[in-house]
Amino acid sequence: MSAATRPDGRAADQLRPVDLRVGVQRNPAGSAAIEIGGTSVLCAASVEDGAPRFRERRGWVTAEYAMLPGATTDRSRRERTGPGGRSKEIERLIGRSLRSVVALDRLPDVTVTVDCDVLEADGGTRTAAITGGWVALAQALRARGWERHLAGQVAAVSVGIVDGQPVLDLPYVEDVRAEVDMNVVATADGRLVEVQGTAEGAPFDRAQLDRMLDLALAGCEQLFARQLAALEGGAA
Amino acid sequence: MSAATRPDGRAADQLRPVDLRVGVQRNPAGSAAIEIGGTSVLCAASVEDGAPRFRERRGWVTAEYAMLPGATTDRSRRERTGPGGRSKEIERLIGRSLRSVVALDRLPDVTVTVDCDVLEADGGTRTAAITGGWVALAQALRARGWERHLAGQVAAVSVGIVDGQPVLDLPYVEDVRAEVDMNVVATADGRLVEVQGTAEGAPFDRAQLDRMLDLALAGCEQLFARQLAALEGGAA
Amino acid sequence: MSAATRPDGRAADQLRPVDLRVGVQRNPAGSAAIEIGGTSVLCAASVEDGAPRFRERRGWVTAEYAMLPGATTDRSRRERTGPGGRSKEIERLIGRSLRSVVALDRLPDVTVTVDCDVLEADGGTRTAAITGGWVALAQALRARGWERHLAGQVAAVSVGIVDGQPVLDLPYVEDVRAEVDMNVVATADGRLVEVQGTAEGAPFDRAQLDRMLDLALAGCEQLFARQLAALEGGAA
Amino acid sequence: MSAATRPDGRAADQLRPVDLRVGVQRNPAGSAAIEIGGTSVLCAASVEDGAPRFRERRGWVTAEYAMLPGATTDRSRRERTGPGGRSKEIERLIGRSLRSVVALDRLPDVTVTVDCDVLEADGGTRTAAITGGWVALAQALRARGWERHLAGQVAAVSVGIVDGQPVLDLPYVEDVRAEVDMNVVATADGRLVEVQGTAEGAPFDRAQLDRMLDLALAGCEQLFARQLAALEGGAA
Amino acid sequence: MSAATRPDGRAADQLRPVDLRVGVQRNPAGSAAIEIGGTSVLCAASVEDGAPRFRERRGWVTAEYAMLPGATTDRSRRERTGPGGRSKEIERLIGRSLRSVVALDRLPDVTVTVDCDVLEADGGTRTAAITGGWVALAQALRARGWERHLAGQVAAVSVGIVDGQPVLDLPYVEDVRAEVDMNVVATADGRLVEVQGTAEGAPFDRAQLDRMLDLALAGCEQLFARQLAALEGGAA
Amino acid sequence: MSAATRPDGRAADQLRPVDLRVGVQRNPAGSAAIEIGGTSVLCAASVEDGAPRFRERRGWVTAEYAMLPGATTDRSRRERTGPGGRSKEIERLIGRSLRSVVALDRLPDVTVTVDCDVLEADGGTRTAAITGGWVALAQALRARGWERHLAGQVAAVSVGIVDGQPVLDLPYVEDVRAEVDMNVVATADGRLVEVQGTAEGAPFDRAQLDRMLDLALAGCEQLFARQLAALEGGAA
Repeated sequence: MSAATRPDGRAADQLRPVDLRVGVQRNPAGSAAIEIGGTSVLCAASVEDGAPRFRERRGWVTAEYAMLPGATTDRSRRERTGPGGRSKEIERLIGRSLRSVVALDRLPDVTVTVDCDVLEADGGTRTAAITGGWVALAQALRARGWERHLAGQVAAVSVGIVDGQPVLDLPYVEDVRAEVDMNVVATADGRLVEVQGTAEGAPFDRAQLDRMLDLALAGCEQLFARQLAALEGGAA
Repeated sequence: MSAATRPDGRAADQLRPVDLRVGVQRNPAGSAAIEIGGTSVLCAASVEDGAPRFRERRGWVTAEYAMLPGATTDRSRRERTGPGGRSKEIERLIGRSLRSVVALDRLPDVTVTVDCDVLEADGGTRTAAITGGWVALAQALRARGWERHLAGQVAAVSVGIVDGQPVLDLPYVEDVRAEVDMNVVATADGRLVEVQGTAEGAPFDRAQLDRMLDLALAGCEQLFARQLAALEGGAA
Repeated sequence: MSAATRPDGRAADQLRPVDLRVGVQRNPAGSAAIEIGGTSVLCAASVEDGAPRFRERRGWVTAEYAMLPGATTDRSRRERTGPGGRSKEIERLIGRSLRSVVALDRLPDVTVTVDCDVLEADGGTRTAAITGGWVALAQALRARGWERHLAGQVAAVSVGIVDGQPVLDLPYVEDVRAEVDMNVVATADGRLVEVQGTAEGAPFDRAQLDRMLDLALAGCEQLFARQLAALEGGAA
Repeated sequence: MSAATRPDGRAADQLRPVDLRVGVQRNPAGSAAIEIGGTSVLCAASVEDGAPRFRERRGWVTAEYAMLPGATTDRSRRERTGPGGRSKEIERLIGRSLRSVVALDRLPDVTVTVDCDVLEADGGTRTAAITGGWVALAQALRARGWERHLAGQVAAVSVGIVDGQPVLDLPYVEDVRAEVDMNVVATADGRLVEVQGTAEGAPFDRAQLDRMLDLALAGCEQLFARQLAALEGGAA
Repeated sequence: MSAATRPDGRAADQLRPVDLRVGVQRNPAGSAAIEIGGTSVLCAASVEDGAPRFRERRGWVTAEYAMLPGATTDRSRRERTGPGGRSKEIERLIGRSLRSVVALDRLPDVTVTVDCDVLEADGGTRTAAITGGWVALAQALRARGWERHLAGQVAAVSVGIVDGQPVLDLPYVEDVRAEVDMNVVATADGRLVEVQGTAEGAPFDRAQLDRMLDLALAGCEQLFARQLAALEGGAA
Repeated sequence: MSAATRPDGRAADQLRPVDLRVGVQRNPAGSAAIEIGGTSVLCAASVEDGAPRFRERRGWVTAEYAMLPGATTDRSRRERTGPGGRSKEIERLIGRSLRSVVALDRLPDVTVTVDCDVLEADGGTRTAAITGGWVALAQALRARGWERHLAGQVAAVSVGIVDGQPVLDLPYVEDVRAEVDMNVVATADGRLVEVQGTAEGAPFDRAQLDRMLDLALAGCEQLFARQLAALEGGAA
């Protein structure tokens, strides 16, 4: 597959342009704005006293995810009668991913809620929320003097099979026609936190799965560098 | 009252710094971002086919209002079990205000929904939503070739009585200790669309009401100029 | 405008016939039935232990408002999936108005709920609820020996502009065609608690606003006399 | 059991004082106010176009039941998140009872909704709602010229066993200590529409059941006379 | 009426075949599966700490009732927005019936919830739930060493009038065309806990009521024997 | 890892005992009961007219998933205020998996709903639901004469890493202490429909991922044989 065959001219293993800024909201303990191609997510990490009892951990990290109505081509309805199945599923994914790099039992009895609000959607909103959410979380923990309880970095990216070819970081136009859609959440030491691959059309074989994992892990490498650069206020 | 007595050093009749930009979102027909002091609202105007039957008007303009959880000092809970009483009241106010300058019966059979999402809150979010919402609405109507059905400009501002003194455009710190809180929605030809004055503490007299109206109408004059400047892409 | 031009032959500054009775329900600490023209509202003030924590006041006064299905020309649906936006807005108005004349910090740790149920609706139901609700509240406070915490009287009335003329106390038939609809809540010492004016059609100017306020304050004067007469068991 | 042993001095087979008035609301097609002892219910019968499809009958009669918050000794909470189990059960009972005397297939394609709102509760609210609801329904059918589709009269009364003795028409004070609580819905030709007997404490035997039915049917006889008197505008 | 006239060839006073097994689920303290004709209900009795405060009893027994979507001829919708009116009514009936034979004040501070899930429905699901629910409850109380707080046996059966004839234990095909539908809950000492008779078509007279009660009590006699046999692990 | 180290003595690559029966409910077009170890799921496939419009496919297959309260060690609450996030996520997984082997565009305009109700839960309920759901679906399609639109078999199984060792088909006791939890949905031709791997504790590496996939695909092979045996009424 030549780079020219993707709608935006990218190579199969190339990320869209990434912009990642920290401290974009005045009130939350941590916040970050991430843009990756046409997807833009605002992430805010708020610290509140008390962790949910049933979790049996000292501290807790959770996430909420929502889309602004104007984020999509057609106006998307606010989820005012409770989050839909899709939102809940995404919230659970973001929460699990962020918790995988936090030493919950060393935190005080607090809940850190990472709110991820999608301002513009063009594919990969849940993976952008994880990547940006980690930056907001890191800033919040640092602000409270708890940065030592952050055990590592976590980032995420989508991969898929489009026209039979494995490709990295799918925009909406590729996503809707992908045969396979997969999200990979990884840590900076090269391990996997989540692998969620779904055949939308024909099922996929083991060789395709392996190629998608290669692409995703290489993409995450670049995102880890961007996260550090944003936190340090330097250019990536 | 000397300017020095307000927390941010403003004179009683002075607006906070205003920044108003148009076309900030890719998908909706119209969009605007308004910042007034520490308050920041994203307004998106989406056009959908069909107006609500029970309205007995050809076209319709409505509004939704929500606050991002990180917009406030303490994280505010998402309204996922339906908008609260306060949000509904604000949505009705924004909708009525915008409809006051649209010739609904000349629109086609469409509903324009103006979504107002508060990114940062520091007082005056509902009035900022009206002022910015009008810009998003104007851009949307222009994009569809319906600008002739926009009968005029509408803007809004808060006034109040703080320490016995009528003041214009209250930030949160003044709002919580105001004796009277009032929102005024006005049109560019100097008339009133809405006057909502509430005594939070001691009731107010007619002379105080008159002084507040003077302040509000002068403040709206400045906002009308900003709206036009934003739409024309010029500096205000 | 001559009196003859109003549908029921009243002068522009004339209230509809008022009937106000106290103690009409056996169970609540206070209750009142108010009829003003074709509008009939049953008000009950119940005292329960405990005030809402987040209010930071010792005692609390709140209101609920509902319409019986048979109160309107067409049967109105019960609000069984939560109060609608309109009901919530009205409940907030009634609550704020009644609280404006109660010394909440001198009350014990109780909540007084004033339930306003509209038995028959013909315009002005929210203002009738405030006027009647004050009588129910006064009876309840008296029954508990807390009448000294009632700082004054509050009453409310609607005004509007119909066919270009400011008029007092609009029945439904005038309300639906009014250009401006305004509710005024005032205290017996001549001050304002709430001013809510809405242009349903053309916006209004300052002179019209002043004339409406004159009408409303004169109307409230008559309602204050009726409230006292009802409480004292005398004829009005 | 001597009459003197009941709290209000009634004989075991005696109804409480009954007041039944028709046409008490201006808007609904039919309405009635029934007072029986300390229980007071407002019944309104509204006619709307269209019957529910799944019923497979041409016309339909249904009921809604609610209690005003001030109707009970302690304020009862409004059922704003849907009717509770008890209300739904009562609504189904009222609806079935009224339908038992209407020729649904001869009605046009309409739904008659009989709203029963309890203004004051002192036992027997559901049976009062049936007795009064029939009067409202009869007035509504007459107003539309459909009185020939009303096949008969239906009324209801409570009976129970208190201190081992079967008694008629229980006020709240008897109801809470009754061993058995039973509602009987009967038609004017002496037949039974509903028999709902519940042992709250010890179960009851066949002889007690028979005695309760005797009391109930005699009580209904008196209520049928009151219904006719109310409709004919005569004194009972 | 000869036995041959019923759709399944039974005599008017004959139960459908009954199968009742205890201990069918691994987790709950007690469980039972009851099949009566084509109706199959799984009953589970779970013991949880704490009784509801407002009940003013030391322990509490309550019930929940639901139908699996595949239990009915046409798929029945899950009650995911709260139990419907019918389910709530049935749950209240099952709970009351089971409580009638438990010494609640001698139980510890626990709630026993008896879940009744209908796997297959062919009439009489609520009465089967009571009969089977008692067995699950008895096993649970025995498992906790509280069998002495079980004061007796309770069982239930439907009766009705079909084609003018009183018949016992109606399957769905009879139920839908029954003129009268009646559920009887009885105790093993021959007394009545609940009698719920409803005329779906023409009202019924006293003689018919008596005949239905005779049939129901004889049917319950057989069910009491089955309950004991199931608990004792013997054949019925 | 020796077989003896698993709580139930199984080898790392061994399934729990499987029992799979077809046609267990009378009413739905297809039904199946699957037991795998201590997990028991009832699957019912109902066919209803009409497919959801927004799907843009001629026919549709969807799934609902629920747990009976008594299925778990502690009673699990019914999801009566809407399915929880976990249930929705599972329902989406089951639906997608089943659709992957159905030619939706060749089906008539119908929706097949596969209801999966968990009677007993001991880990792997969602994968059992997919494996059993396919059998119910196959029977339903066959009953309607649509078996040619079933493009293949789909089955699912859980794998995980427990104490550092990849193992197949985790019961609850292993599931709660697994470091990695993964569900694999595969087709009989050896391809993957879904891969969902989640690190609950430490992230996992690529070699571990590969070993888990090997185990899962071998496990699915055995399940495909059981599905065919059940449908053909033979022993597996």
